[in-house]
Amino acid sequence: MQKHVDLEQFVVIDETAPLAANTHGGRAKCLQRLIRLNMPVPLTVALPFTTVRAIATGMQVDTDAILKHFGARPLVSVRPSSEDPDWGGPGAVLNIGMNDARHAEYANLLGHVAADELYARFVQTYSVEVAHLDPDSFEFDVADADALKAMLAAYEEEADEPFPQDPTRQLRDVLKSMARAWEGTSARLLRQARGAPDNAGLGLVVQRMAPGLGPRESGSGVIQFVSSETGKAQITGRYLSQAQGRDALEDAGAFYLTVDPRGKSLEEIYPEGFDKLVEFGAVCRQRLREEMQIEFTLDGGELSVLDAVRVQRSAQAGLRIAVALAEDGVISREEAVLRIPPGGLMELMHRRIDPSSPRDVLARGVAASPGAATGYLKFSSAAAQAAAAQGEPSILVRRETSPEDIRGMHAAQGVLTMRGGMTSHAAMVARGLGLPGIVGASTIHYNRKNKTITAPDGRVFGEGDLITIDGTSGSVLAGEVTLLEPALDDTFQTLLGWADEMRDIKVRANADTVEEAQMALAFAAEGIGLCRTEHMFFEENRLTVMREMIFSETTDGRAAAVERLVPMQLSDFRRLFKLLAGKPVCIRLFDPPLHEFLPQTREGMRELADALDVPLSKVERRVDALAEFNPMLGLRGVRLGVTMPEIYDAQARAIFMATVEALQEDNPVTPEIMIPLVSARREVELVQGRVEAVAAEVRAKTGVDFEYKLGVMVETPRAALRAGEIAAHATFLSFGTNDLTQMTYGLSRDDAGRFMSDYVQKGVYPEDPFHRLDLEGVGELLQLGADRGRAVRSSLTLSICGEHGGDPDAIAFCRDAGFDYVSCSPFRVPVARLAAAHLAIRDGQAQSK
Amino acid sequence: MQKHVDLEQFVVIDETAPLAANTHGGRAKCLQRLIRLNMPVPLTVALPFTTVRAIATGMQVDTDAILKHFGARPLVSVRPSSEDPDWGGPGAVLNIGMNDARHAEYANLLGHVAADELYARFVQTYSVEVAHLDPDSFEFDVADADALKAMLAAYEEEADEPFPQDPTRQLRDVLKSMARAWEGTSARLLRQARGAPDNAGLGLVVQRMAPGLGPRESGSGVIQFVSSETGKAQITGRYLSQAQGRDALEDAGAFYLTVDPRGKSLEEIYPEGFDKLVEFGAVCRQRLREEMQIEFTLDGGELSVLDAVRVQRSAQAGLRIAVALAEDGVISREEAVLRIPPGGLMELMHRRIDPSSPRDVLARGVAASPGAATGYLKFSSAAAQAAAAQGEPSILVRRETSPEDIRGMHAAQGVLTMRGGMTSHAAMVARGLGLPGIVGASTIHYNRKNKTITAPDGRVFGEGDLITIDGTSGSVLAGEVTLLEPALDDTFQTLLGWADEMRDIKVRANADTVEEAQMALAFAAEGIGLCRTEHMFFEENRLTVMREMIFSETTDGRAAAVERLVPMQLSDFRRLFKLLAGKPVCIRLFDPPLHEFLPQTREGMRELADALDVPLSKVERRVDALAEFNPMLGLRGVRLGVTMPEIYDAQARAIFMATVEALQEDNPVTPEIMIPLVSARREVELVQGRVEAVAAEVRAKTGVDFEYKLGVMVETPRAALRAGEIAAHATFLSFGTNDLTQMTYGLSRDDAGRFMSDYVQKGVYPEDPFHRLDLEGVGELLQLGADRGRAVRSSLTLSICGEHGGDPDAIAFCRDAGFDYVSCSPFRVPVARLAAAHLAIRDGQAQSK
Repeated sequence: MQKHVDLEQFVVIDETAPLAANTHGGRAKCLQRLIRLNMPVPLTVALPFTTVRAIATGMQVDTDAILKHFGARPLVSVRPSSEDPDWGGPGAVLNIGMNDARHAEYANLLGHVAADELYARFVQTYSVEVAHLDPDSFEFDVADADALKAMLAAYEEEADEPFPQDPTRQLRDVLKSMARAWEGTSARLLRQARGAPDNAGLGLVVQRMAPGLGPRESGSGVIQFVSSETGKAQITGRYLSQAQGRDALEDAGAFYLTVDPRGKSLEEIYPEGFDKLVEFGAVCRQRLREEMQIEFTLDGGELSVLDAVRVQRSAQAGLRIAVALAEDGVISREEAVLRIPPGGLMELMHRRIDPSSPRDVLARGVAASPGAATGYLKFSSAAAQAAAAQGEPSILVRRETSPEDIRGMHAAQGVLTMRGGMTSHAAMVARGLGLPGIVGASTIHYNRKNKTITAPDGRVFGEGDLITIDGTSGSVLAGEVTLLEPALDDTFQTLLGWADEMRDIKVRANADTVEEAQMALAFAAEGIGLCRTEHMFFEENRLTVMREMIFSETTDGRAAAVERLVPMQLSDFRRLFKLLAGKPVCIRLFDPPLHEFLPQTREGMRELADALDVPLSKVERRVDALAEFNPMLGLRGVRLGVTMPEIYDAQARAIFMATVEALQEDNPVTPEIMIPLVSARREVELVQGRVEAVAAEVRAKTGVDFEYKLGVMVETPRAALRAGEIAAHATFLSFGTNDLTQMTYGLSRDDAGRFMSDYVQKGVYPEDPFHRLDLEGVGELLQLGADRGRAVRSSLTLSICGEHGGDPDAIAFCRDAGFDYVSCSPFRVPVARLAAAHLAIRDGQAQSK
Repeated sequence: MQKHVDLEQFVVIDETAPLAANTHGGRAKCLQRLIRLNMPVPLTVALPFTTVRAIATGMQVDTDAILKHFGARPLVSVRPSSEDPDWGGPGAVLNIGMNDARHAEYANLLGHVAADELYARFVQTYSVEVAHLDPDSFEFDVADADALKAMLAAYEEEADEPFPQDPTRQLRDVLKSMARAWEGTSARLLRQARGAPDNAGLGLVVQRMAPGLGPRESGSGVIQFVSSETGKAQITGRYLSQAQGRDALEDAGAFYLTVDPRGKSLEEIYPEGFDKLVEFGAVCRQRLREEMQIEFTLDGGELSVLDAVRVQRSAQAGLRIAVALAEDGVISREEAVLRIPPGGLMELMHRRIDPSSPRDVLARGVAASPGAATGYLKFSSAAAQAAAAQGEPSILVRRETSPEDIRGMHAAQGVLTMRGGMTSHAAMVARGLGLPGIVGASTIHYNRKNKTITAPDGRVFGEGDLITIDGTSGSVLAGEVTLLEPALDDTFQTLLGWADEMRDIKVRANADTVEEAQMALAFAAEGIGLCRTEHMFFEENRLTVMREMIFSETTDGRAAAVERLVPMQLSDFRRLFKLLAGKPVCIRLFDPPLHEFLPQTREGMRELADALDVPLSKVERRVDALAEFNPMLGLRGVRLGVTMPEIYDAQARAIFMATVEALQEDNPVTPEIMIPLVSARREVELVQGRVEAVAAEVRAKTGVDFEYKLGVMVETPRAALRAGEIAAHATFLSFGTNDLTQMTYGLSRDDAGRFMSDYVQKGVYPEDPFHRLDLEGVGELLQLGADRGRAVRSSLTLSICGEHGGDPDAIAFCRDAGFDYVSCSPFRVPVARLAAAHLAIRDGQAQSK
């Protein structure tokens, strides 16, 4: 926030000048710090936000008074100084003060070439950026011999006046132009996209030019001491003789900094300057507690530091820099942890498209599961499996996926669908598998028969064509693209290890299969917060049994079919318990509607009729009978558990038998059994009664005693409202925020895609409530549920297990509300661990203030 | 509730005996009243609930002491006396005390025939009902000469003992048998179905027999003074010479009561007795404040009143009796209003199946819209319309209906579908039209091609076969059935007029069309609480325009199409405002998802492609693109209003132009515009802004100023939670409890049918929350919403407009919460008016206590 104090129109920066980033901008503040560190910073004057805002509205600033500080023949630059350098600002303007008289003096002093270039650069910038003349008329290389003359003529031609000679007017015009540019719509949108608030201010710094041109060694350069890509210590940058600004970075003739076999280096041609710069870098790192990039000039061998900014860095580099600073004792571990934005970790955990690689984007869809993958287009599970058998990468393309596609998804490198949203089958499975996925790419035309997809531009791709999908951005790309590997190195582990020591809320993972559980453990999840068991029913041999169950006419027939699944589920749970080795596992009982287990196509129905040896018409009738208008709100979850109790009985039996086996193998487990889609207390009572009976039966049969916990997944608004009476029968409540959000808003996540971006743009919803937990609405239900539950049972374990589990805001909410843990997809576990640490550190800081 | 006082084992009923209906039962209490009115009631002893309960558990009651009251040669009957006579009880046992010795005495006294019959009747009842011997062995007409001997022999044969001779034992066994019968499961279920509580008690009355047999004029009869069917004054009943109990009602030889050309009458043969009975009737009506049916005997010309019970009555008769009693000053108008159960009114408002007509039930479905209708099966809208053109009644049968079927439904007498639930299209439209409807009759197999339906028993019905549907019960019947016309007579209007004077919450109707609005006014609705405008888009010429809009590629194209609907809608609103003549009209803006306007069948799509002159593939793609996974939670309501604002603009324009016209015709109207499916404040703001702009435009164009109100339909849990900020932009909130219930439970009403009955049976939900408002969950959201809304805007108008608007519990809730009105379907308006009056009267009574 801007402080309300009277500020001078401008201030000369020295060690004690009253300056702050939130009044004069980050650049002004940083220059003062460099001065305090005794660096050779040319004389600089800072204009605060208030002055710049006044200039933009037409006020005259006393430019004479400013220029007076720069002596009789001022030559200055103006640079933007926004509060956060990342918010950007108008481009720098150099060599203000150049005019015919000064040109002649510099020609004497530095030679004609240097003087021409100084003047030409200023005329060019002034004409285009300040006077807004036609840029085409000023398209010259400022180093060209004729450029200056031509541009002075062009100015006179276009502006109907000779090029302004008065430095005071020059500076006034430059300041005004920069102040106004900041108020422009595009600049505003751009900085808001980078996180700037509505009322972000701009400061400006006016600095004595160190020209970088002249007869003795002169030039400009940029240096940093770590790699922006990896964060490892490495002197990086360029130096260009007879140059100004940041030209060195773009000029083929620039020198290396350190001795290099490929060409000349600053270290060789001017070792004293180089050593000085290295020393400056070390000072900055130690005293500014950050890796800085330094902009410098040499003028006849004299070194000036014009500016220093935080080194730009990839997520990976950021991590390494923070860890290195902490390990060197420059910053604390808390500080290192705080410096890493949790969301940035996602980038490290998946393959991604090399930012420098060219892209041919065909279409966009919903970015359903992060990561990038390249493969040959395959239109069926079978084709994807065949490709995998031959070691060929594939991308499985389907209009939408169904249980039959699971094996194809296992075999493919990525999945692309034309329909569905973030909670569609394809999206859920892909995230679970850590498989890059794009869903709802509705602008692509899918032709199942011909096995082709047609891009909006008309290009057709068939089986065997290579495509790349970027599940992080939702882009579908033609052909192959260079991919970068994930970066889960020691630094990553070190930082997250520190985070774990600091945080005070547990993090579990949602994991349905042994593979996902392995991933969860690899990311140091403290247990499984949501193991959806329905995936166990979709595997091929089990799907058949499930279908037989669905076609059973009697309760006994159903029970018999379901019983055949017990040994299969037992083996799943056996492996899970073994893997988790005592860490908690929360198992959600069967949830999906039965029609998900039936084929949707005519072919599929025909196959099923053959397999079950029943008439096709019977299959059709059953499919028809089980179809639902709103499957989300239909016969699923505990409603199935109550009306067809044999399913939950069988699941409980498998869980308890696996528990007994684990106990016998000296791996004590207390399984947590979770009932989905509860809306009334009595549902819990009924399931509780049957589960208790199954437990008693297993205890009697095996002679082994064991413990278990029974809890409820709170995902209907009513369950949250009635959490008090529900908690009387539950030892834990886990809020399923996906469904809870859908029901609270009356909004299907799968169907919201069609208008969500429009809604967010219009500010109807501040953000997509499926990405960021809606604290006002859904959050109130969470709070009500938590309070009412704990009022009845103070030992109640509370958690969330929706996809918001990895959202820092949601974690903050849960922590404040006294939740025990959050659970999220394995890949978000590190994000959650880090976000939780941030909260604990900030709380600690706030308390110690 | 049973009082906890020490009761005697039994009590002799006289004017002052300590007796109450909740300790001794209604019959005992009524007999005491008759005694107080000086009626000739034979000596009666009453056993309280506590005694009977003790007997049932094996306690011995002092039967000797009871019998002592009846003298040396006791001959008694025992009858049940439950708290409310409607709860039923075991059958009466007559002539207890008969044995060989008494038989001989009576033979001397009354003659052999009478003595035989007295004994035979007792032996028969005792053997079958008390000793539980095989009923087949006792199937005799008790008036037969051989019956007694045969049954005494049968008893000895079956029971291995002679028929018990000791009156003490006889009475003990009878009491025990009746006490136990009350505790039996079937008796318990039966009385609970009639509204008895779990712990309902049974009293018994032991009464001296007035035999009704003997040499001088003896017999028994039943008399009442109004018709049970119509409630009109009319002496009704029969008298049978030489008979006991209620035999007169079933015997062809029974006499009429009043002089009758068809046969003998009591009035003729025994005018003194008849006059006495008429006098008793008048006394009962005046003093018991009720129309009573009197059971009497003559014994040698001596009249006894054995019992009197409330006259059984149809809903219509009940209404007339109550009104007549109030008009005669016997009871107050409040009392008359309270005596009519609101739910019972429904029966009066629709055609119904004559209860005495034989029924051939083919199948059952969801009772979606009450009333009965007979017609020829028709499988398409066109066929139903053709039938209507020829004056032929029809029942429209469809798998499920779509907008294209509306005209067929207008033409048909009833509608039957195989799919859908209470909120399916067919159900909603049928209720709106007052058209009998059954939906979700899933056991019927529907064959569209052959135009047949097949009943579960295999019978096939085709186009032109007559069927009858009973939308009140959900039964589908073969052929024609006698129907009774609705009974909306003066009495009905009188009673509801009284109710209107007493109630203190307004009642509006949900009405979408002018026809429905007419119905609403006929039922004295105080305005329209919910006018769903989408029906206006489904009429044929409008449907075409809507479809053109859906296929427009541009905003302008859409706006142009929608503008063409303005004149059509204008004419709808013009008629509506004229009809309502100043009564309030709350118009809900467009709500349904667009895919409802597209054909679902291939044929339909082909026709549409032809009509719009676009390729079939384009239609298919659009249908596909608009399809939704969960339409209930999709792109509809205000979401359409925000993303395609031209629809709401056009609607607002039509509403305001109609308002201007009404003003110009001296019919001032303040339309209420309601925004559906709101989940966030900003949605309301955006619509508000556009509606205001349209209003300004219409004002400017017409030069006429007008007022309107803008409000919100609260049907998502989030809207209820955020009612405070929403109310800042709304002058009214109307809770749409249908959708709110669906979202709070996470339960689609259309899909809940498959398990709802199971759920209610298992007590998971105490009742179907779509029929009875869930006060605990949904109710809390209503309360929260109301409180938060009123906190921000104290003048906020509050109402409910879901189907619960006619549910007495919901009305009570709304009244307590300070709501301004409830709105329900036109046919439920009288129910709501009456229920509201009940609440106000009861509140008044409670306060005056």
